[in-house]
Parts: sequence; C-alpha cells; structure tokens
Amino acid sequence: MATALTATALAGLPEVTPGDDLASLITEALTQRRESINPGDVLVIAHKVVSKAEGRIRHLGDVRPTERATDLAKNLGKDPRHVQVVLDESREVLRAERGVLICVTHHGFVCANAGVDASNVPGEDAVVLLPEDPDKSARNLRATLKEHHGTAPAVIVTDSFGRAWRNGQLDIAIGCAGLNPVDDWRGRTDATDRELKATAIAVADELAAAADLVRTKDGSLPLVLIRGADRHVTADDGPGAAALIRPEAEDLFR
Amino acid sequence: MATALTATALAGLPEVTPGDDLASLITEALTQRRESINPGDVLVIAHKVVSKAEGRIRHLGDVRPTERATDLAKNLGKDPRHVQVVLDESREVLRAERGVLICVTHHGFVCANAGVDASNVPGEDAVVLLPEDPDKSARNLRATLKEHHGTAPAVIVTDSFGRAWRNGQLDIAIGCAGLNPVDDWRGRTDATDRELKATAIAVADELAAAADLVRTKDGSLPLVLIRGADRHVTADDGPGAAALIRPEAEDLFR
Repeated sequence: MATALTATALAGLPEVTPGDDLASLITEALTQRRESINPGDVLVIAHKVVSKAEGRIRHLGDVRPTERATDLAKNLGKDPRHVQVVLDESREVLRAERGVLICVTHHGFVCANAGVDASNVPGEDAVVLLPEDPDKSARNLRATLKEHHGTAPAVIVTDSFGRAWRNGQLDIAIGCAGLNPVDDWRGRTDATDRELKATAIAVADELAAAADLVRTKDGSLPLVLIRGADRHVTADDGPGAAALIRPEAEDLFR
Repeated sequence: MATALTATALAGLPEVTPGDDLASLITEALTQRRESINPGDVLVIAHKVVSKAEGRIRHLGDVRPTERATDLAKNLGKDPRHVQVVLDESREVLRAERGVLICVTHHGFVCANAGVDASNVPGEDAVVLLPEDPDKSARNLRATLKEHHGTAPAVIVTDSFGRAWRNGQLDIAIGCAGLNPVDDWRGRTDATDRELKATAIAVADELAAAADLVRTKDGSLPLVLIRGADRHVTADDGPGAAALIRPEAEDLFR
C-alpha cells in the first residue's frame, strides 16, 4: 500500500498558444528535468494551458452583448461583453447577485462565471474558456504522452472552483483519464468491521488540490507531477471527471 | 520557492480512548519511525482520534429521542436516537430528504449528520461527534508537540465532507493552528501583471485533501505528515479553520 505521495511542480512550459502540441511541450519540460513517465504517475495540468492550446479563447472586442447580458452586467457591475461570453458557456444561471454569477456550464459544472477567466491571459481583451470536453482533452494528452514515453500517465485537467458554505477556492478535476475518479468504499468495512455506508472519496479532486499546493497563482507553474497515487491509477481511461458531477435530480442545493 | 510536497502516513498510532494524551501518542508514532518535527512540517490528523481522546462519544443506549427526532428518523429511515444526537450537534437543519440530513453544526460547518459518525468506533452503539472546538484542539496539540520536540508543527484536524453539486467527499480542515488557512492572492498580480480579483486559495482544505490520499478509509492511518508546505506555515497559531467558514449572510446556497 502506498503511504507516501509526492507532488512536484514542473517548470519549463513556455507560454502556450492556440494550435500548440501540448503533449510535446510537456515532454520537453519533463526532458529538461531528466524525468520520464513511470507507471503510476499522475500529471496534473491547469486547464488554462489546455484551453489555450485548444484555441478556447475569445476576444471581448468581437462580442456583441444581448439585452439579457447587458441587464445582468449592469446589476453585477461587470463588462456586458464578459457576461455575454459567460452566458454563451452556460446551460443555466443559478445565482446572479452581489457581483457574483454562479452558472451551470454546458458540461454540468457549477462554478462562478462558467469558468470564463481573464487572468493569466496575454492580450488586452482576451478571456479563456474551459475546454469544450475536458475529459476528452485528458484522454488525448494521455494517448499522445504514451506515444512519446511508452508509458501512459494518468492525466488530470484542473480549475479553481469556489464552493458553497466555505471561503476560498479549491482546485478540482474538470477532466481526467487513466484514473479512478471516485474511490468508493460503500459496502466495504471499516477497522471495526462495520459497513461503510456513505464513503466515496473524490480522489481526482483530492489529487487536483494536492497539485495546487506546489503551484503559485501567477500561473507560471501549470504542470505538476504526482507520484505515489498508484492505487488510483488505471490501465484504461476510465469514466473521467464527468463521474464527479452530481446529477441535477440528486442535488439538494440549486 | 517550494515546488515539491510530500505526504506520508504515519502508522503506529494505537486505538485512542477518552482521556488519552494524543500528543504523546503522536510523539511515540514519530519516534518509532525515527522522525522528529522539522520547521515547516504540517501534521494532519483525522478528527476521529481527536474526538475520541476528548471523550466526544455518545452511546445511543443513553439517548432519549424527542418527537422531532422520531418524526425525522421515520421520514429518513434512520435510528431516532442517532437523529437526536445529530440534532443536539446542530444549530440548524438545512435539508432532510432522501435519507440525507444536512445540518449546520454549532461551529457553523455545513455537513451531513452534523459530523456524527458511527464508523471506526468500537462499541455496538457508540457514535463519535466532532470536537467541540477543533481549532482549540489543533492549538493544544501544536503547543504540546512543541514542548515534546522543541519545534511546533502546523496542525490540521480533518473530516470528510460531501459537497453541493459534486459526487464524493473531500477531506477538509475543521481545525488548524500554525497555518495560514487561506492564501489570499486578491490584489496581487498574475503572470501578465493583471490584478487577481477573486483568487483566495483554501490552503488548509487542500492540505487536508492531500493527506487523505495516503490514508485508507478503514481508519487505521489517521496521522499524516506533510513536508514542503513551508510557505503556508506560520509562527503564530493564526485564525484557525474558522476562517474557512463562509458567513451565512454571504452564502448564496442555503
């Protein structure tokens, strides 16, 4: 049983631009550190570089806000063009008050501004969106990294999400591949042989959180290598981070 | 800048019972591994051993359920005595449906069953409560460990909490000392010199999540040592995990 875990930020990733081959850039960053990929490794990547490579960028100068966006923006004290991009990325707006716009994205994530973000983006009016299908992004990266290294790492794509009830944000998994995202202990027993009735651990989110601890929010360290989480790593891609989205019908807090 | 983090589960803690000197038991577990406490170390402890040492145990045989507990229990399919203990630990019940009881504890935590738990507790009818003041528990442990080792570790007391919107539980910090629980980047700038407007990282929760990755849910590894998080460790006790509770007036999801 693994009882030690290490998380290491990998410097050396250049500024990523649309069309870049992210897997090759990651391989270069690994090579610079004389690292390769070992079985059981988990690569955790801030979504922003994935989104940039995939061209998931919009320029506010190109955005024509609708009346709804203009009204919301006025109430929230935001740029109506930014609000329009948020609405374009949203299936539903859950809350719009006190300067905060909490949305359900087309993927089903509940987060502020549908994950649309202006920080760590070069260009005066550019905003970065979440990847269109972050699980697919993770699967693609995993497959290409396997071609490069002979071994497939588990891949997690992350973003920082706020939560209900608690201050501050946590990095969570918005996409993953090669990993069991939920470690389900239901039906297994505890140390006193009592059945565990409600214990299912969001392992992919815990790995995302662990990776964030070695990063800084200036965005210069998007890539983190975690070792010692072998027991959660799988041979196949697995269900992805979509398995972490609670179905609306089971959600008591909307 | 620290760019590597290690989390190691420390075996060797015996079954803890009320009145035990937890700091001494932790010191013994460290000594068995020939470990001591270095500056910048973070000790993460599952609350259950803290609660047991503090005698925060109730026996259902001693509990007389009120009418309200009996009614709730009937609707939820639960033991009315267990529900009574949950109500005793709660300031408010937010949701009671589909077998789930989401409460605000007297501390202000929002969680299932007010943190009252029957797993990993010896004794047929015993349930374990959250510590009465988990920040105080963390401060006390930190002070006594400093007496033993000459160096004070940061201490985090954890529990596994479910979340709105996402499946699975995460370990979070319900108490801490010697640690900056929130790393507030608001007002600082990103890599493109843009001001970060909403970035405040719940570091104590991320450390709790990282520690959980090296544990198993059978409860046999309550103690985890994290190294490499020095930049979040402080000389004084700090505001504790109470700083992570979002004030009710600022909470959009109740």
